Amino acid sequence: MASSAPWDGLKFVTGNANKVREAREILGIDLEQATLEGAYEIQTADLVELVRHKAEQAYHALRTPVLVEDSGLVFSAWNGLPGALVKWFESSVGCAGMLKMLEGFQDRGAFAQCCVAVHDGREIVLARGEVRGAIARGLRGSGGFGWDVLFIPDGHDRTYAEMSVAEKNAISHRMRAFAALRERIG
Amino acid sequence: MASSAPWDGLKFVTGNANKVREAREILGIDLEQATLEGAYEIQTADLVELVRHKAEQAYHALRTPVLVEDSGLVFSAWNGLPGALVKWFESSVGCAGMLKMLEGFQDRGAFAQCCVAVHDGREIVLARGEVRGAIARGLRGSGGFGWDVLFIPDGHDRTYAEMSVAEKNAISHRMRAFAALRERIG
Repeated sequence: MASSAPWDGLKFVTGNANKVREAREILGIDLEQATLEGAYEIQTADLVELVRHKAEQAYHALRTPVLVEDSGLVFSAWNGLPGALVKWFESSVGCAGMLKMLEGFQDRGAFAQCCVAVHDGREIVLARGEVRGAIARGLRGSGGFGWDVLFIPDGHDRTYAEMSVAEKNAISHRMRAFAALRERIG
Repeated sequence: MASSAPWDGLKFVTGNANKVREAREILGIDLEQATLEGAYEIQTADLVELVRHKAEQAYHALRTPVLVEDSGLVFSAWNGLPGALVKWFESSVGCAGMLKMLEGFQDRGAFAQCCVAVHDGREIVLARGEVRGAIARGLRGSGGFGWDVLFIPDGHDRTYAEMSVAEKNAISHRMRAFAALRERIG
């Protein structure tokens, strides 16, 4: 990135206000949210491919430096699922349904993934964050959002949703992705 | 469609040779297969939206009349899943995995959906076909492809994969979609 202040004026293009809130807390900056009419995500299990497409779509629609993100939850027993498709699981069966679908499987391991990218019109810089953990045996906690009620990070005995905002943001897959991105673009 | 012979020279744009074979058998014509480099499907549970995007993408890449298709399998217990995302279930957990994920649920109802579209550069004509049925208690049969081993159409006691090619094609969701399309474009 050529700019000396790459985070200034960057628009976080997402329909999810929870992600904007977390990004502001993690980065400690006042990040502006933008939404795209008619935007779509591509069908893929590959988070990097998905986020690269998102960055291109957002930049070409807005013609201003953009930040995009996608995250996913991979169940070890399911060999890649739900991954980046977890939003469809949430909106159909919900987190309770995912637990029920996992009942017949022994392995409750999982990892939380986040990929973020900045596109300034010249280049796309991508960064990833990942946290290993396990799927809880019930829906636990009322903090966070989405599937935070399901995911217990390794080395902890509480789900993301049972942690305070500061606790989650200190260890999360999203924090790791943003930290890696900050290392790359200053 | 303005053409008097709308099926002539139409290219079926798909990476799945099984679908081309079935379309040829159902329509009784010699349909040419074409594949697109760098094509992607959009993430949506809405088969019509997905197929409309596919038709636009295929026409704009090839600039020749195109036929596109997508199909899905909706489990009643899962409120929309896997739907058009079934290919990701197949490539991760497989059909055996889907059965295991369904174990905890009472309702084994399902429906098979197909949406087809023709785009000739001026308009997109879409048609749908749907078949209600149930999910088998094991993987049954060796015919067909994909999730045919799972799906027992209503009024039958065998899965698609236990039927002959002619039997399946006489009743399938894909046959119904093509029949509806043929009614619309002649």
